[in-house]
Amino acid sequence: MISAGIVGGTGYTGVELLRILSLHPDVSVSVVTSRADAGTRVDAVYPSLRGLCNMPFSLPELETLGTCDVVFFATPNGTAMLMAEQLLAKGVKVIDLSADFRLQKVQQWSHWYGMEHACPWLIKEAVYGLPEINREAIKQARLVACPGCYPTAVQLGFLPLIENGLIDIGRLIADVKSGVSGAGRKAELATLMSETGESFKAYAVNGHRHLPEITQGLSSLAGMPVALTFVPHLTPMIRGIHATLYGELEPHLDISIDSIQALYEQRYADEPFVDVLPQGSHPDTRNVRGSNNCQIAIHQPQGGKTIVVLSVIDNLVKGAAGQAVQAMNLMFGLAETTGLNIVALYP
Amino acid sequence: MISAGIVGGTGYTGVELLRILSLHPDVSVSVVTSRADAGTRVDAVYPSLRGLCNMPFSLPELETLGTCDVVFFATPNGTAMLMAEQLLAKGVKVIDLSADFRLQKVQQWSHWYGMEHACPWLIKEAVYGLPEINREAIKQARLVACPGCYPTAVQLGFLPLIENGLIDIGRLIADVKSGVSGAGRKAELATLMSETGESFKAYAVNGHRHLPEITQGLSSLAGMPVALTFVPHLTPMIRGIHATLYGELEPHLDISIDSIQALYEQRYADEPFVDVLPQGSHPDTRNVRGSNNCQIAIHQPQGGKTIVVLSVIDNLVKGAAGQAVQAMNLMFGLAETTGLNIVALYP
Amino acid sequence: MISAGIVGGTGYTGVELLRILSLHPDVSVSVVTSRADAGTRVDAVYPSLRGLCNMPFSLPELETLGTCDVVFFATPNGTAMLMAEQLLAKGVKVIDLSADFRLQKVQQWSHWYGMEHACPWLIKEAVYGLPEINREAIKQARLVACPGCYPTAVQLGFLPLIENGLIDIGRLIADVKSGVSGAGRKAELATLMSETGESFKAYAVNGHRHLPEITQGLSSLAGMPVALTFVPHLTPMIRGIHATLYGELEPHLDISIDSIQALYEQRYADEPFVDVLPQGSHPDTRNVRGSNNCQIAIHQPQGGKTIVVLSVIDNLVKGAAGQAVQAMNLMFGLAETTGLNIVALYP
Amino acid sequence: MISAGIVGGTGYTGVELLRILSLHPDVSVSVVTSRADAGTRVDAVYPSLRGLCNMPFSLPELETLGTCDVVFFATPNGTAMLMAEQLLAKGVKVIDLSADFRLQKVQQWSHWYGMEHACPWLIKEAVYGLPEINREAIKQARLVACPGCYPTAVQLGFLPLIENGLIDIGRLIADVKSGVSGAGRKAELATLMSETGESFKAYAVNGHRHLPEITQGLSSLAGMPVALTFVPHLTPMIRGIHATLYGELEPHLDISIDSIQALYEQRYADEPFVDVLPQGSHPDTRNVRGSNNCQIAIHQPQGGKTIVVLSVIDNLVKGAAGQAVQAMNLMFGLAETTGLNIVALYP
Repeated sequence: MISAGIVGGTGYTGVELLRILSLHPDVSVSVVTSRADAGTRVDAVYPSLRGLCNMPFSLPELETLGTCDVVFFATPNGTAMLMAEQLLAKGVKVIDLSADFRLQKVQQWSHWYGMEHACPWLIKEAVYGLPEINREAIKQARLVACPGCYPTAVQLGFLPLIENGLIDIGRLIADVKSGVSGAGRKAELATLMSETGESFKAYAVNGHRHLPEITQGLSSLAGMPVALTFVPHLTPMIRGIHATLYGELEPHLDISIDSIQALYEQRYADEPFVDVLPQGSHPDTRNVRGSNNCQIAIHQPQGGKTIVVLSVIDNLVKGAAGQAVQAMNLMFGLAETTGLNIVALYP
Repeated sequence: MISAGIVGGTGYTGVELLRILSLHPDVSVSVVTSRADAGTRVDAVYPSLRGLCNMPFSLPELETLGTCDVVFFATPNGTAMLMAEQLLAKGVKVIDLSADFRLQKVQQWSHWYGMEHACPWLIKEAVYGLPEINREAIKQARLVACPGCYPTAVQLGFLPLIENGLIDIGRLIADVKSGVSGAGRKAELATLMSETGESFKAYAVNGHRHLPEITQGLSSLAGMPVALTFVPHLTPMIRGIHATLYGELEPHLDISIDSIQALYEQRYADEPFVDVLPQGSHPDTRNVRGSNNCQIAIHQPQGGKTIVVLSVIDNLVKGAAGQAVQAMNLMFGLAETTGLNIVALYP
Repeated sequence: MISAGIVGGTGYTGVELLRILSLHPDVSVSVVTSRADAGTRVDAVYPSLRGLCNMPFSLPELETLGTCDVVFFATPNGTAMLMAEQLLAKGVKVIDLSADFRLQKVQQWSHWYGMEHACPWLIKEAVYGLPEINREAIKQARLVACPGCYPTAVQLGFLPLIENGLIDIGRLIADVKSGVSGAGRKAELATLMSETGESFKAYAVNGHRHLPEITQGLSSLAGMPVALTFVPHLTPMIRGIHATLYGELEPHLDISIDSIQALYEQRYADEPFVDVLPQGSHPDTRNVRGSNNCQIAIHQPQGGKTIVVLSVIDNLVKGAAGQAVQAMNLMFGLAETTGLNIVALYP
Repeated sequence: MISAGIVGGTGYTGVELLRILSLHPDVSVSVVTSRADAGTRVDAVYPSLRGLCNMPFSLPELETLGTCDVVFFATPNGTAMLMAEQLLAKGVKVIDLSADFRLQKVQQWSHWYGMEHACPWLIKEAVYGLPEINREAIKQARLVACPGCYPTAVQLGFLPLIENGLIDIGRLIADVKSGVSGAGRKAELATLMSETGESFKAYAVNGHRHLPEITQGLSSLAGMPVALTFVPHLTPMIRGIHATLYGELEPHLDISIDSIQALYEQRYADEPFVDVLPQGSHPDTRNVRGSNNCQIAIHQPQGGKTIVVLSVIDNLVKGAAGQAVQAMNLMFGLAETTGLNIVALYP
């Protein structure tokens, strides 16, 4: 049994880790921390977990967390970087669901996250936890930086086009729509039901924190810097991300949509959690709700030069907790899908 | 491996059976029928099942269904009664999720369902599939009539009060709220998003088909006829039933809310899927969404003579497909919870 | 032109007052206060009002508010009682949408609202602003206490039954469902989209602040104390209240549902904002969304002794701002419907 | 008083016309037709109109419609073209909310709408009813073709950029999101609450009927053919369209975002229903819900070459019934805003 700790168990990614890990056959959650709810039973805060998790939240302390085999950070940005080094020193593997170790350039991180990085020397060691790109590195990692939800949907959608040099990387567009759970479990006006229900809006058009992360990932795939316009939107639902991606075929290319479809199917043939839909499909976020799947469809409207990729995930699963467990499985030599055989909740 | 057939696989209870059974360790779904979609792959209609169910829908034929160990009817009312007898004759166990065998009085059935019963002689044999009341009978049954969604929530809520003769059975009130998936997957104006979203209404106040079913069940518990006012409501969400039940304490009784709480806890102590919440709780349908649980809380407002019971289930799971699988587990001697360890999807 | 001030303009009842008053032909809003947003333009906080309200929020000061003809308090409880007396002294009429002057018994108020009343001597003068009961008194009032949203829906629903002594006032039940805007515009976990969307729950079953207000109102109608069980619920929509009311016909009575229907129609024949639907109807909250109407239907399920009344309003209009403007029209001798000819927004 | 007829009064655009016209000071609705509901009172189908429209639906007959001053077609495509000529011959002005007269090329119309055009000779006379472009022509028109909902949001968003030749018209992208009421009031699986609630999807990526309409409009503005990628999406809400538009600045241009902002403000300075938000804004569909406004914001992410325009409308108002009434006001010499002073319903 792998002993797991969860730091920041009262947020949506924390409770989602508990949902998944409570049925994981090889993991036992031994510590769940929360400064605000320390002493309260986990299932008192989350009655959905009654019968599955009757321990209390505890304070995040090195002593208890240090006894775990793996610690997940489901915390706001800026927390994992304060404890990761000490945990690693005790031989604990660390999986960070926050953004602390996602960006390779520390100045860039400070710019977008508005604080000094407390542990910049660990950034280089951290492995970006997107198994579809970094599987082997994740297997060897002590410290994994789980990708953000937007970056997961966008990178998996663009990946085969960019890896194969099919589109102009000087003008990529990602128009992405997220459910409100992506904003986290925080008392805020902006995500009240009365503010977000029955309404749709873009936000952070001039710069969202996930922009540098996506750009870093796509540039790495391309082998040179890409230019991306990334527009996130808030959609009146709880879970789900739908990325609508636009790329312009390189002018010299003579490639059919059938060939692009084949290329996607081939690229993801062995990926357990990336599913290329039949040509002409329109993935629907409900079909991945609660599951660790990414469903993708590719279109070439009017046979023109613009390729449209549709990529959907559940932001809390493949975009957070599920992907973290997928990384954990790899790190501990388990079958990658262990504990992640979850069927999406439709309707 | 138990070989299972599903008749009427394109409705919401059908796809919910597939969601549950596709991960059930002891069941293999070998036939899924649909007249409308025969020949189409199941996962083409339901992309949430991709990778789990790649067989096509077939026509409902005795030949194929007759080879199954168990056949589930997830059909409109009036279908199961046409095939049940022949399947039983072939040694197939039958679990009917529709209403065909729920009412013991055939005239009453004809009155409420507006048709002649095609197979009245089987009604007596059919076992009403509420394990919390009929566990032993279900184990022996060849034919199980799964309870309706409203009846499940209401009966489990009232049960301890009535079994113990605590309330006036001459004036029971059940004010119940359902998500729209309870109306089924049918092309209808009334359940369009534009008609049901952001709105709330009662319906069928003068008589809903679940009224005689609930009355039959509660009368059986009471050992004499009960009088029930049952008001169903449509609430703007997809899944979930919330029953708010009102009963008047018998005047001669001197019993505290603590004692009633204890009585509920004791009655359901060994029930794997009925969970009595701590006193003062307010169950929330989200906490059972996708799971087979029923969560119940009991209140005595202002210490008065009216007891208020709050009872929530997921209408498609404990109110339909999950309860059907629970019955199946009992009928085949499996552990009752097999395949039903599903954590509710929160948020 | 009536010069109006709004204290607490950043809450949902405040912005709703602005929506209604900005098109009212006889009113000019001259002051809108907000401590938090003082200095910010109203239409910067509420872009729905662009072109209609370009003044800034100001601090709530006696000097400016004292120049108005009428001041609306759309504030949290405990604010209006601090300023009402001084405004009245300056000849300003005061309409309080909060609860400060709703309860006639000051100890009861302190008990439910958890604070000392700052101005108990004004309670007696305050007129409870339900025009269907208090029209003449409102016309003469200097200080109006607008009813709460639940109390409006419940009282209008029960009124003809109680006025005519048709039901047992010793066991009234009000099972009421509200949209989340009723909780106000406050940064809180409990009303986040992720917490309230796709879910349904009861709350405050053991005692909600509107209970004493409703009981006071119904007791006054009955001429003796009534006993009421009041269970409020949170429903996943923004606007709307649906009250499902249960009353037991007095045993000696021999009255048909047709007669009760006629009695309701007669009682409300001259009421511009109470609409008794044809027998057999089920009012839907969407049909009053954004309007000042209350729609009511009466049922007698199975011809039994229990009468079920369905009563719907928009909690922010007839349950708050619309009713306040209705009262203002009466206080200033305007036609009662002035500025309130709003058609509900369907779909 | 202008006497108005509405053909197809049972759809969402029909009832929206009734909502608006029932309070229009210069219009009296004298005929509302519906084949399906002929004989039924309008307010029995739409209780939101009780007290405002107590006439019955009638059959669509030339005799009665011919006595109107203006007839609105709120019908499925292919109906208006069957009656328009005869009505015009009787001196009736015709405003078509369907697509029958939107496309100038009749073969193109037949291709996208899958039928022969019954009245091609009227196409040339029909005026495309977007007042911001065609105001003078609308004033003189006998027959107005109201723009589609998507085309309204997209054209108003791109207009100033294209009129001024600022962007590359060879690669325009319109990523547009619509509420489900855009699909109309039809009994269909695809728009059930259980199918569309809590989910997000693109549809018709390979070609939507509004594509040729938008292309026609933008090409006309540009004076040469434009190339547009148009991806419509279904978003889980009832009303609202949010267009996210991407255009690439012409390489030779040296223009700041401030100048573009000024250009938008100037272009729409005299438009009563187009509102350019302050720089940096993110329009939210709720802020135009129920109103005839279009709110627009312009961004230049990271100061790059891609301009992002955000444009929101209510699909049933500025995208249908409101725009139709705006056109009617122009055709009859009324003030353009008459009857359209509606404040958006927030929250």
